[in-house]
Amino acid sequence: MARKLILSEDRFFPAEPEIRRLASDLYQSVCDLPIISPHGHADPAWFARNESFSNATDLLVSPDHYLYRMLYSQGVGLESLDVPSRQGAPSTDPREAWRVFARHFYLFRGTPSALWLNHVFAKLFGIEVALEEETANLYFDVIAEKLAQSEFLPRRLFERFNIEVMATTDTADDALLHHRTIAKSGWSGRVVPTYRPDTVVDPEHEHFRMSLSRFASESGRDVSNWRGYLDAHRTRRRHFIAMGATASDHGHPTARTADLSAADAERLFSRIHARTFSPEEAELFRAQMLTEMAQMSLEDGLVIQLHPGSYRDHNRRLYQSHGRDRGADIPQPTDYVRALKPQLDRFGNERGLTLILFTLDESAYSRELAPLAGHYPALKLGPAWWFQDGPEGLRRFRELTLEAAGFYNTVGFNDDTRAFLSVPARHDLARRIDCAFLAQLVVEHRLALWEAAELAIDLSYGLARRAYKFAGSSSERE
Amino acid sequence: MARKLILSEDRFFPAEPEIRRLASDLYQSVCDLPIISPHGHADPAWFARNESFSNATDLLVSPDHYLYRMLYSQGVGLESLDVPSRQGAPSTDPREAWRVFARHFYLFRGTPSALWLNHVFAKLFGIEVALEEETANLYFDVIAEKLAQSEFLPRRLFERFNIEVMATTDTADDALLHHRTIAKSGWSGRVVPTYRPDTVVDPEHEHFRMSLSRFASESGRDVSNWRGYLDAHRTRRRHFIAMGATASDHGHPTARTADLSAADAERLFSRIHARTFSPEEAELFRAQMLTEMAQMSLEDGLVIQLHPGSYRDHNRRLYQSHGRDRGADIPQPTDYVRALKPQLDRFGNERGLTLILFTLDESAYSRELAPLAGHYPALKLGPAWWFQDGPEGLRRFRELTLEAAGFYNTVGFNDDTRAFLSVPARHDLARRIDCAFLAQLVVEHRLALWEAAELAIDLSYGLARRAYKFAGSSSERE
Amino acid sequence: MARKLILSEDRFFPAEPEIRRLASDLYQSVCDLPIISPHGHADPAWFARNESFSNATDLLVSPDHYLYRMLYSQGVGLESLDVPSRQGAPSTDPREAWRVFARHFYLFRGTPSALWLNHVFAKLFGIEVALEEETANLYFDVIAEKLAQSEFLPRRLFERFNIEVMATTDTADDALLHHRTIAKSGWSGRVVPTYRPDTVVDPEHEHFRMSLSRFASESGRDVSNWRGYLDAHRTRRRHFIAMGATASDHGHPTARTADLSAADAERLFSRIHARTFSPEEAELFRAQMLTEMAQMSLEDGLVIQLHPGSYRDHNRRLYQSHGRDRGADIPQPTDYVRALKPQLDRFGNERGLTLILFTLDESAYSRELAPLAGHYPALKLGPAWWFQDGPEGLRRFRELTLEAAGFYNTVGFNDDTRAFLSVPARHDLARRIDCAFLAQLVVEHRLALWEAAELAIDLSYGLARRAYKFAGSSSERE
Repeated sequence: MARKLILSEDRFFPAEPEIRRLASDLYQSVCDLPIISPHGHADPAWFARNESFSNATDLLVSPDHYLYRMLYSQGVGLESLDVPSRQGAPSTDPREAWRVFARHFYLFRGTPSALWLNHVFAKLFGIEVALEEETANLYFDVIAEKLAQSEFLPRRLFERFNIEVMATTDTADDALLHHRTIAKSGWSGRVVPTYRPDTVVDPEHEHFRMSLSRFASESGRDVSNWRGYLDAHRTRRRHFIAMGATASDHGHPTARTADLSAADAERLFSRIHARTFSPEEAELFRAQMLTEMAQMSLEDGLVIQLHPGSYRDHNRRLYQSHGRDRGADIPQPTDYVRALKPQLDRFGNERGLTLILFTLDESAYSRELAPLAGHYPALKLGPAWWFQDGPEGLRRFRELTLEAAGFYNTVGFNDDTRAFLSVPARHDLARRIDCAFLAQLVVEHRLALWEAAELAIDLSYGLARRAYKFAGSSSERE
Repeated sequence: MARKLILSEDRFFPAEPEIRRLASDLYQSVCDLPIISPHGHADPAWFARNESFSNATDLLVSPDHYLYRMLYSQGVGLESLDVPSRQGAPSTDPREAWRVFARHFYLFRGTPSALWLNHVFAKLFGIEVALEEETANLYFDVIAEKLAQSEFLPRRLFERFNIEVMATTDTADDALLHHRTIAKSGWSGRVVPTYRPDTVVDPEHEHFRMSLSRFASESGRDVSNWRGYLDAHRTRRRHFIAMGATASDHGHPTARTADLSAADAERLFSRIHARTFSPEEAELFRAQMLTEMAQMSLEDGLVIQLHPGSYRDHNRRLYQSHGRDRGADIPQPTDYVRALKPQLDRFGNERGLTLILFTLDESAYSRELAPLAGHYPALKLGPAWWFQDGPEGLRRFRELTLEAAGFYNTVGFNDDTRAFLSVPARHDLARRIDCAFLAQLVVEHRLALWEAAELAIDLSYGLARRAYKFAGSSSERE
Repeated sequence: MARKLILSEDRFFPAEPEIRRLASDLYQSVCDLPIISPHGHADPAWFARNESFSNATDLLVSPDHYLYRMLYSQGVGLESLDVPSRQGAPSTDPREAWRVFARHFYLFRGTPSALWLNHVFAKLFGIEVALEEETANLYFDVIAEKLAQSEFLPRRLFERFNIEVMATTDTADDALLHHRTIAKSGWSGRVVPTYRPDTVVDPEHEHFRMSLSRFASESGRDVSNWRGYLDAHRTRRRHFIAMGATASDHGHPTARTADLSAADAERLFSRIHARTFSPEEAELFRAQMLTEMAQMSLEDGLVIQLHPGSYRDHNRRLYQSHGRDRGADIPQPTDYVRALKPQLDRFGNERGLTLILFTLDESAYSRELAPLAGHYPALKLGPAWWFQDGPEGLRRFRELTLEAAGFYNTVGFNDDTRAFLSVPARHDLARRIDCAFLAQLVVEHRLALWEAAELAIDLSYGLARRAYKFAGSSSERE
């Protein structure tokens, strides 16, 4: 007999009855607020085409490196999970891959992946038994049946999920055709792009050359010289803004910034463009570009997000066989205090600039990030990210940043996911953890109840909407 | 209608009823113990002159970078808060500045600043409504009225606060005139200086040259040579000790120490004095001086406090416009294991030496500081400091140091404040957090009740008194 | 009247009644499971000779640097605790040393040392009063009386402790005579060696030369050349495996690995052997040897344990007077992401290899170690180690690793002790903390009860048994 899958109404709330009661009350006041999803990796094609998702494996497992990395760590081959390699997608039967996944689902016990998936299984698909080898087929069939229904088409799900706005992440050379299709479709869903120029800013990116060429043609600029290259950024940013973008995003190995003279920057760009640069020059170029982007943001208003500190594709063999982004990115110690200084010296006091900092190095929260954000007008703290966005990580984020940065130098939650179905689960988890934290502060008399009530709404909705400038749109009311 | 300001008797105690009850019991046994304030930044002039404090803004806001940094981070200009710049104090109306502060007081929700201020508002000024824009005038008036009363004169407050001893922080070139005035006044309050030689030890300090010259004249020594310079320290330390000092304090960018030969030290000093030093030589000089200070401490008995790891005045423009100490100091990763080795090789095993270590890098607590303090006779751990002295930080300090260092290698609480009115609030908070931690240990059967009862008194009173050698005074009983 | 010593049945469980109840239930299901002790420092001679332990001091205090370091930190001389120096054992009267220990036992309040010792005192020796100066003699006498009984002989204790298997730690040049004696004795206790080649792998070890010579004679190989040296390792590993070893262990200053060409490795070894190496070459040799050991493990199946990050013998004077391992080892920041890359590039994807990583730098848990272990098939996380193996540290280990690595990339508990009598106390503590953590997850609806029930057994028993390959033995049933 299969074990039950139960989603408790009190999930993620602390056990202590007074805190639990208050956390639940606070949560009731925010659980129906619209979702602001200012940073994620949904594919805009889903909403442009609005076609049915295929099956459980292709939807939930094979594209999600959060999931297959864990199975891989226990010896499960990626081909058996239908994860594409450089040779293309394996011809693994999706149902068979799903069975492999189900058999190993116990590996996720206690992890956020299990919490999010169980939310999706129970709330979205109405499944009432736990995922195990014995229930794998049942799951596969139920999910296939539901996905075929019109209620499960991407746009309908977006509406059912009560998403007010969702930002995708798009490379600087992207023509944004899907966003254009969505805009022209008359559908009211607000799906906006985010300007992510990494492939044309990081000379060491494997697609740099190809991306730069597309960047030139999309922008209509000559990117072989520094001035033209900067103009191309301005042009493309304008296009992104026209399609609804309010932010740029930057994934760098470090948080290093630079503030070179125009002449030095121009010389550096020549070496970058001529492909004669050293690793140090590549790093310096990325550093300088963060400052150039800040300068452009002062002009065009895009919010900057900085996601530093990941050693990308750490597994050499897997990179060779399967390419980028296959669950082998590993965080590193990340310095902010010295790294950001050149940029902060120039723009740190600008009230018109918003630079949102993220980290994978939690030791920086109380040491560097909260003190920085609690001082510089231009800085805000992004929420717990990636390996730290489960209950423990979300909680630590608050505990480690509250006292030096307060709540109002943070910007609400990011789901940061390509697993579209898990978006409500992730926001629900974050809201519950924040409400639980607020409840504890109230019960410990560190916050008044009326303050917690206001904060619950701000942390769930208001801060993200304001920090990412979604409130300014004409279709929105403040 | 204004919201109520309520200071619960159970504030900061955990919600779980058994722990809360016990925490409260332990707290009752220590809440009336005298305050030992061995490290702070009160102005001795207050007690020398014993004049009324002026108004809420000048007393509470404009001198307190804990407060105005948070407002600054949200775009509030320092001039509107009456914070002095290099051009002097702005002519902002204090009442108007207070209104700005009140309007932004919500930014402090959940931070220790709010907890301390609310304690002062409720307990000291008897205010019963929360600080908001609507109550700003009421607050300003009530505070002004109270400050004019004799019960609110500095010496009277010192007595009402039940302060047994308070150490100020004084530069090595300070004539200690206020301390002399206090001593001669016949007032029984014990206000003692702390020897803080940073301005004559850090060649990169902006006041180094000026301070060195005053240091020479105050000590009557020729500080242009190494021997005379060391003699000047000895002389001035003697004077501080005569005025009641029991400790020196050292705020360095790093914890680096050195143990140069006398000849090398002398050569280094020549370059320092001739202003021909490199940054590395400046660092080496600071490092060597920590060891020289330890040597002198062995002779004259001063306890050494080391406060490393702050990147001072990180905000270049603010430093240019407003000078030092304007809320822009940012912690950095801090190494202790290698940095302290030269000094520990020489003095680490001295039972007669007390070197109290502080950190802004909490990752060092369980990794370096607790293991070091749990081994070396000369080392003790200072309490959570600066950005980490709220409920979360105080709690983490205990959690991260207890298992390797125990309680008895720590030294009680430091309020470390220039906000004199908040001294009782800060000690009250620390005592409550420690009692809560002890109560949890008892309820989890990790400590016997009688042990917790002894520890509550030691953590609140005994450890600070003994570590800082205040118990040795003739006016004290052990 | 002496204070009572009480060992509560609910010790280490959280106060909240629902969590406490469930933690207790889970604990009841695992408290009688056999102990797997895959990493420790018991002396095999105890079980080979099976002679009575002598007295409380010689058994519990003078060999245990966990204990005497704390007293030393408060000014107690090592000679007064009967700790041997380079001149040999002092002639301190054991009873007198015990009295010194008892007088200072309050220093351990709240530390794991107190928890473990009180467990031993109460459960093993049946003592019902707390250890203080007043009860020191009583303790000494009771312990002496018990130790003389046959029930307290080492083999009998091993059986009473319900130890299924215990691994000792043995240098690569050790003849394993005691293990041989145990094997021949007909006694059913399973005591196996662990291959710890540090003294022949670390050219900077003070016993390197002597150890290398014994290594040559024990292996019968010419270790003056690279090929012979590697062969000697293979030979000795085979011998250890024949005596029951399933693992090797490596205590290195850093986690650095290398993957040199055979020619470069050979050249490096020549310089090492000729004692003409630089510190950097010593580090490179240790790094290369970790990769060589991994290669051998792929051939012979030994599990690799890596214990990096301790600055050994930090106290120079104590090292000079008392030698190695005298409580002065201090953790340092430890890099894994770059340090392990050479080895992971070569072996990280091997399902047949198990490399268990430990740390003394807790900031690496969520940043580096959990992400690494949650991806690489060859990696697993060892439990909280050394300064972090008390309730707080064990708890943090779970909180900081669960979300990125799950439970199944961890390997159960290590007692890591030379204090044989404390083995049950340490495993009991770890089981209680894990059950408490699981109970909290259940009550917060982050885990189903049936999952927690399975996990409790896995964390207490199954994971260690499987990760260290003890299940494969013919005398074991899976």
